[in-house]
Amino acid sequence: MMLPVLNMDLLYESVAEKGNVCVGLDTAPEYVPVKERKRHNTDADAVLAYNLALIEATIDVAACFKLQIAYYEAMGIAGLETYSATLKYLRKRGALVIADIKRGDIADTASRYAQAHFSGEFEADFVTLTPFLGMDSIEPWLKHAEADGKGAFVLMRTSNKGRKDFQELELKDNSKMYNVIGKKLSELAGKSINRKHGYGAFGAVVGADPQSPDEREEILAIRNAYNNLFFLIPGYGAQGGAAEDAALLLRDGNGGVVNASRSILRAWITAAEKNGLGKDEVDLAFASEAAREAAINMRDAIKAAASK
Amino acid sequence: MMLPVLNMDLLYESVAEKGNVCVGLDTAPEYVPVKERKRHNTDADAVLAYNLALIEATIDVAACFKLQIAYYEAMGIAGLETYSATLKYLRKRGALVIADIKRGDIADTASRYAQAHFSGEFEADFVTLTPFLGMDSIEPWLKHAEADGKGAFVLMRTSNKGRKDFQELELKDNSKMYNVIGKKLSELAGKSINRKHGYGAFGAVVGADPQSPDEREEILAIRNAYNNLFFLIPGYGAQGGAAEDAALLLRDGNGGVVNASRSILRAWITAAEKNGLGKDEVDLAFASEAAREAAINMRDAIKAAASK
Repeated sequence: MMLPVLNMDLLYESVAEKGNVCVGLDTAPEYVPVKERKRHNTDADAVLAYNLALIEATIDVAACFKLQIAYYEAMGIAGLETYSATLKYLRKRGALVIADIKRGDIADTASRYAQAHFSGEFEADFVTLTPFLGMDSIEPWLKHAEADGKGAFVLMRTSNKGRKDFQELELKDNSKMYNVIGKKLSELAGKSINRKHGYGAFGAVVGADPQSPDEREEILAIRNAYNNLFFLIPGYGAQGGAAEDAALLLRDGNGGVVNASRSILRAWITAAEKNGLGKDEVDLAFASEAAREAAINMRDAIKAAASK
Repeated sequence: MMLPVLNMDLLYESVAEKGNVCVGLDTAPEYVPVKERKRHNTDADAVLAYNLALIEATIDVAACFKLQIAYYEAMGIAGLETYSATLKYLRKRGALVIADIKRGDIADTASRYAQAHFSGEFEADFVTLTPFLGMDSIEPWLKHAEADGKGAFVLMRTSNKGRKDFQELELKDNSKMYNVIGKKLSELAGKSINRKHGYGAFGAVVGADPQSPDEREEILAIRNAYNNLFFLIPGYGAQGGAAEDAALLLRDGNGGVVNASRSILRAWITAAEKNGLGKDEVDLAFASEAAREAAINMRDAIKAAASK
């Protein structure tokens, strides 16, 4: 039996070609330029139109795209239709897409979620998963890595302050809880026998936002300890992370994608101010260009930081 | 300002009146009786028809209902339409419903999820949440407890084997990770000032399936330590839990609902065998009656165990 090409390998190659930017389509209706939003009968339609414009504006700059499903669920059925249509468009355009669903459930239920997000109307190339229930909530997703090359990013150490509450709890052996997760994921990654670039089919979500110099050491230690884990790195831009921080989690400039959502989706607001335009004068072309510029600047900043 | 009635208080009263059974509508298309499934053009329609029949058959026996959204997501948009229609029907019938979504995300994203599941097409009375990201992923949901009386059950100690991987990690102070969660939730519960029956708006998911006698002690200790937390107790029936185990998590027969899904949804299979009926001879009325009997037996078994 031929083993499928891993999406994680395709992502590695996409990073090598285009840089580390993951464009986060966490598209709240408020992020759509006012004028464009008014042109549509529903917010779900406005979001879809903006998504497609953003995709075209950034497709040659983005290693991949990420859809945060919460923004779509909040618009009900119509929102999920927009979610589905955006996924389909991305896959048709040959772009890699991460469904940021942070699902986590056991046994049968995990298999149903896998069916939902690795096939059919909500099919994506990667998902994000929450490991809280235990590794038996992760394993049902793995057979899709073997059969179709699908991948996942499992939450390990997130970029919010609340990560201290549980992820960073100190264990009896002086390690932290996220180390236990990293170790288990790294073992899993080692089992992806068809990997081409060293990274397993399942990687990890690791935030890059040190709140002190000690934390920079901690982040570097994560990169060094789990060298077969590809990282999805949140927290850039609007969430406060910088290129230098994100670069700590890369290896030879690869091995990670850095997500930015609001700083790209809302780039038109700053750009309008700079150009003396009123907020309601911005059209889709202007907003797309602003998003593209934000993505290019981010790509170049990370590249520069990684090559230091 | 009048404080709203807490759904958790309504749930307490529902338990006092009807017992501890939570009917889990984790309705996979395969659980719909063959004959009924064939009558419909789509699985989503078949599941909806079966759900409505199950609701009518058990509404006077069930303290509440729980919908596991994974089963609906797996059917795509049509599945989510069935999910929405089932929620609306339950609410119209005055039944309390838990959306078993196990969502967990931060800040803005958590607020979007709350919007999605506490209003609009997917509105439920309670949700389930994963605490992995930290308490800042729980807090955005709380304002809905204050404004509308909504409630949530936060995962604390689940009923799967994999709970050992992270939830039961031993911390430096000899406690386990789930104790940290319980403590934080109990503090939250203490802040629900309008509670009538002693339980906060946000409770916890705690499994009742001791795998050794020691674990029975552990489960009892959980009930005693967190007396203001209402429990959603999974793992009954098909998952191996028994009435005696579930009763460990109750207090004066209340303070918890016990979920059963497959043992109710698939009760028609055993009932057909007992009655010498072929699997494809079962109609909706027969299946509904079997589900009702299963729910009644479960209710009575828990009641008997709790009064020992």
